Amino acid sequence: MAGFGTVGSGVWKLLKENGDLITSRSHGTARLEIRRIAVRDLEKKREVEAPTNLLTTDCASLVDDPSVDLILELIGGTGAAFELVASALRAGKPVITGNKALLAERGQELFALARKHHTPIYFEAAVAGGIPIIKGIQESLIGNRIRSIAGIINGTSNYILQRMTEAGLGYSEALQEAKKLGYAEADESLDVNGWDAAHKAILLGSLAHGFLIDHRQVYVRGIEKVTPLDIRFASELGYVVKLLSLVIARENGSIEIRTQPSFLSKKNILASVHGVFNAVAVKGDFVGQSLFYGPGAGQGPTASAVISDLVEAARSSHPDRGFLPHRIDGELVPIDDTSTSYYVRFSVTDRPGVIADIATVLARHQIGISGTHSPVDPDHPDADFVDMVFLLHTCPFGVLKTALAEVEQLDCLTGRPVVFRIETL
Amino acid sequence: MAGFGTVGSGVWKLLKENGDLITSRSHGTARLEIRRIAVRDLEKKREVEAPTNLLTTDCASLVDDPSVDLILELIGGTGAAFELVASALRAGKPVITGNKALLAERGQELFALARKHHTPIYFEAAVAGGIPIIKGIQESLIGNRIRSIAGIINGTSNYILQRMTEAGLGYSEALQEAKKLGYAEADESLDVNGWDAAHKAILLGSLAHGFLIDHRQVYVRGIEKVTPLDIRFASELGYVVKLLSLVIARENGSIEIRTQPSFLSKKNILASVHGVFNAVAVKGDFVGQSLFYGPGAGQGPTASAVISDLVEAARSSHPDRGFLPHRIDGELVPIDDTSTSYYVRFSVTDRPGVIADIATVLARHQIGISGTHSPVDPDHPDADFVDMVFLLHTCPFGVLKTALAEVEQLDCLTGRPVVFRIETL
Repeated sequence: MAGFGTVGSGVWKLLKENGDLITSRSHGTARLEIRRIAVRDLEKKREVEAPTNLLTTDCASLVDDPSVDLILELIGGTGAAFELVASALRAGKPVITGNKALLAERGQELFALARKHHTPIYFEAAVAGGIPIIKGIQESLIGNRIRSIAGIINGTSNYILQRMTEAGLGYSEALQEAKKLGYAEADESLDVNGWDAAHKAILLGSLAHGFLIDHRQVYVRGIEKVTPLDIRFASELGYVVKLLSLVIARENGSIEIRTQPSFLSKKNILASVHGVFNAVAVKGDFVGQSLFYGPGAGQGPTASAVISDLVEAARSSHPDRGFLPHRIDGELVPIDDTSTSYYVRFSVTDRPGVIADIATVLARHQIGISGTHSPVDPDHPDADFVDMVFLLHTCPFGVLKTALAEVEQLDCLTGRPVVFRIETL
Repeated sequence: MAGFGTVGSGVWKLLKENGDLITSRSHGTARLEIRRIAVRDLEKKREVEAPTNLLTTDCASLVDDPSVDLILELIGGTGAAFELVASALRAGKPVITGNKALLAERGQELFALARKHHTPIYFEAAVAGGIPIIKGIQESLIGNRIRSIAGIINGTSNYILQRMTEAGLGYSEALQEAKKLGYAEADESLDVNGWDAAHKAILLGSLAHGFLIDHRQVYVRGIEKVTPLDIRFASELGYVVKLLSLVIARENGSIEIRTQPSFLSKKNILASVHGVFNAVAVKGDFVGQSLFYGPGAGQGPTASAVISDLVEAARSSHPDRGFLPHRIDGELVPIDDTSTSYYVRFSVTDRPGVIADIATVLARHQIGISGTHSPVDPDHPDADFVDMVFLLHTCPFGVLKTALAEVEQLDCLTGRPVVFRIETL
């Protein structure tokens, strides 16, 4: 085991508490024993105490030790973790990892090494903690063409958005609260900028569609700029704002993939995913709609996922647990070509003709308006700017961008338009 | 493949449409080909046409054919299906089945045969159709002590109860509607009497707790006697009525298992499982709460589950897919010793002292009353009987039964008390 932080401690505790149960459930085929633990600092005070003779600062020694059969990578990051995983695969030792960034950004190299050395990489813990969505897609749904995957797969963002919704908090306040409760890390950037969720979606999409999705081509937006105002308007219109990760297969086989804060009908089952819980809804051509729901992070759930991989690796090396490409023509849809309906909020000076001006531009681009919403703040009926919401019919995002660039030239605009997609799943 | 009805046709279609995809996803390790199909009637007109040279009426010939590696049992029932599965196992041919009744009632013999011949039985399709709950418990949650399993695992019942709730239909009307829509079979008895759900719960509980649960010791009640009145009262009190299957582990290791229509808070995530969908919520000591949701039956979803088992069996015979007992002291809690709070509806003559009489009996048995509810029908304020609901504090079911037997002696009662458990999950 490399890394002995929250998840590593959880694995240690789980094996201590339930190791015998696991052995008996597998009738002795899975006897899991931690032989060595690589850490950065031998002196650090830790949550659980492991025998000091197991600890080492020499990561490479895990791979070299002939008594070690499997490598559990829990270091995080894409540097030292990459070296460790690569050297383990070269040595033919199966790897279990929960490192989504590593696989989403450097999976190309690692999965190729895995195939070359016929050595599996298991990564159930990398996506949605305790939810068995990797196994779900790779095994349970193997008979299905996957039509869509829609996930709420970053608990921190989901918690922050929920608090902004329920309590009307601003983004910063909600973030501070999440930090205080341990739901956001000291450096929250990957959680709130959408990339943590995007990394997971890249892995799910790659497994579902058979080609490794290039993270540089993926559209990702975070929740940092979501305002309580848009959340309130969403609610008044029957929606909730969720950080949604979508992987959608088009009829022609190309794939839309995006992660961004989106509007979702309050009636959608994903709308009731609260707090730090995660959920992944998968549509397959035979299975129809299915949903996996559970804790998306945390010590216990992540350890549970790691252990399921360890047991599977111990029982039988499944060479295709990892990623076997099965499509060479996999192609992503450029974000400008993806279509949904939209919520657009314009901040405008309140003068006659504003609506007409904006509507004229939209009409010129063939964008239909399905509704408008522009409540007046009861406390400031004479404020000299107003928020004007347009709900727009489905059109390609590129067309919308072009139209909005023109609207921005109008002198009645006092700020940039705010856009949310309205997703119907 | 034995049996070529709805599910068999689905498997045939799935392999035809997605067989190449499955082969490429597994990099050639899973090449699935149907070699023989045993049917009862060669002449019967079927949904899909299979080459006539594959059809046979001789079930035993499937096992005898040396070109057949795996047996897919889709006959149903516990007679001929038992013979087929047993002979396949004796011949060392892995079995895939969706037959929950067979495994729940005759699993003792079949799982023993499987172990003796080191030949697996796969049965993902037996529980909740397209939802991968067998794999979920056997593999994904293998590191967890399972605290509880709560399932809505009979779509027919769930549909009927939902229609009774939404539209105020009576049980028979709702059943007729379900039949018309194909959500209930011609013979609906196993669905509505609770045993279909109970069979599934027996399998889930056995896998989770390591001993084969004896179906004769399981408490099962169906939905046939649920009335629109109780559903309405439930709603007024903040509950929905669901056919719930529960497997609950006590601290001392013994297991409560029961299937019965129960009250569930409208806020519980299981309350929003609508129509013929199924959901299984599992609590584990490390993973916490997780939920699996999807279509619980139907051609496509069930075929999807069968295929996932077929692929797994083709890739690697997992000898413990089946049932490996790992507890010899497994014990069920007698139903009289299980405790919840309760909704009890008494039909009484409306005379002074009725409430006092009933409350006195309950008090004598130390049963606390947490609330009462006795709305008057606005159209019949002078009706000569009333429905009086008591919400009772948690007590053992046996104590409640004894108390209610005494209440029934009171001359103010005009019918038998109606009892629902209130489950807090």
